[in-house]
Amino acid sequence: MLKLLSLLLLTFSFTVVADDDWRTPATENLVYMQLDTGLVVVELAPFMAPKHVAQFKALIKEGFYDGLDFYRVIDGFVAQAGDVNEQKASQHKGALAAEFTRSVATDSDFMLVQSPDFMAPQSGFLYGFPAGRDPDTKQEWLLHCPGTLAMARNNDANSATTDFYITIGQATRHLDRNMSSFGRVIYGMPAIQALHRAELNNSSGVIEDVSKRSKILWIKAAEYVAPAQRISVQVQQQTSAAVAQRLASARTLDNEFFHFKGNGNLDVCYYQLKSRLVTD
Amino acid sequence: MLKLLSLLLLTFSFTVVADDDWRTPATENLVYMQLDTGLVVVELAPFMAPKHVAQFKALIKEGFYDGLDFYRVIDGFVAQAGDVNEQKASQHKGALAAEFTRSVATDSDFMLVQSPDFMAPQSGFLYGFPAGRDPDTKQEWLLHCPGTLAMARNNDANSATTDFYITIGQATRHLDRNMSSFGRVIYGMPAIQALHRAELNNSSGVIEDVSKRSKILWIKAAEYVAPAQRISVQVQQQTSAAVAQRLASARTLDNEFFHFKGNGNLDVCYYQLKSRLVTD
Repeated sequence: MLKLLSLLLLTFSFTVVADDDWRTPATENLVYMQLDTGLVVVELAPFMAPKHVAQFKALIKEGFYDGLDFYRVIDGFVAQAGDVNEQKASQHKGALAAEFTRSVATDSDFMLVQSPDFMAPQSGFLYGFPAGRDPDTKQEWLLHCPGTLAMARNNDANSATTDFYITIGQATRHLDRNMSSFGRVIYGMPAIQALHRAELNNSSGVIEDVSKRSKILWIKAAEYVAPAQRISVQVQQQTSAAVAQRLASARTLDNEFFHFKGNGNLDVCYYQLKSRLVTD
Repeated sequence: MLKLLSLLLLTFSFTVVADDDWRTPATENLVYMQLDTGLVVVELAPFMAPKHVAQFKALIKEGFYDGLDFYRVIDGFVAQAGDVNEQKASQHKGALAAEFTRSVATDSDFMLVQSPDFMAPQSGFLYGFPAGRDPDTKQEWLLHCPGTLAMARNNDANSATTDFYITIGQATRHLDRNMSSFGRVIYGMPAIQALHRAELNNSSGVIEDVSKRSKILWIKAAEYVAPAQRISVQVQQQTSAAVAQRLASARTLDNEFFHFKGNGNLDVCYYQLKSRLVTD
């Protein structure tokens, strides 16, 4: 049992947590995805990609994704879903202008964690999302950490329409500032990780046998989910004492479990803000 | 369909691959794990952790893990398996001396990819495994990338015995040089990703309801696996032209899909060497 207790420390859990250390995302920014592997809840990021959020919500409202599937799933990379044949009709499938980054807003709540980051001048959190920032260009953006939701596109930066992907492996940071990220899974990553993958030798990642693809039963805005199907998910406040303590401890590995104390650098994608379920 | 074709490029696949670009791991270094979620094949790293490999193989041979389970599975962190109650008898459960790093061998085939790495002076590949190196201390070690196999321990560096973990999320690089990594999953990561996770609010990660834990049916050295159950897995040669081309392309994002070209840094844990199945 000793080994168990010790390894627990690796998760940097803290049991003393004040209620105001957690926030409940706005209902209008929550999306439920009922997959055949389980329920997933996504928090949308309209502050970064308002047009992508608006189109996604319009598509959801008309039931565009219901019955479609995850047709391209590459372990360690992305799970991509939607209308692979681009045959499904919709009033809301126009090409979207890229929303890869945004100009730093004067009221941005960006919280610096790491500077320089390995892939950006700065990384940290922005409204609870892992984010990057460049003080020179005065741009900020969402990072492609595990659980990031973004729209697929072709080579044209302004070509996303309906199909989306969720990152499922080591952070695909080369997609940062190249794709319009517009949300993040805050509940149900195990259901995403359980999605059926393409076979090993299938380099395209497209699962040809449609019957093997994991299905989207439905996707709904939270407000349209029946109360009995709702759950109450909260996310750590990036400014909470618990997060500050976790990051400080991670930076120095100030625990007798660690014999090598690291170099002080933090990978924000590993230290994403935690979620919890609240029950009455 | 355009979007699909374009996104394919993100995997940096190359179709022209010479046969000598792939290696077949030595049979003595291959371990089969039949889980209730699927088959997993691990390549062991005796060059880095010979005592851990020897003890693991001895435990396998006596059937120690057969019927045990993954009792602690935290999404984004590790899946830990073995004998949580430390009740199972064995002739091979003595405490192991730490094998976190090794002195750089004169015949080491370390291939530098990134210097400085975010978490180490250097990172690259060592006999096909993602590895770190410090020219000052003249030490090299295996990185905690997704799919790394290592032994659990308590605070004492020399306390690992039987239980192991496999990393399942964003690289747990704070464990580098702190744990004895002794292998890597080369086939079956989807079966690992499908392992039943602890519930969200369970900070310990220990799945109390034993019936919910994913089971180990058996673990065997490859030589003891019936021929009909064997598969032929190959791994890219770290020195192959395909790997060199993939890394060079990733460093500059020299593809019209990418509008932001990155900063030239590469995360070795994202660019792990690929596996393929060979069929007669």
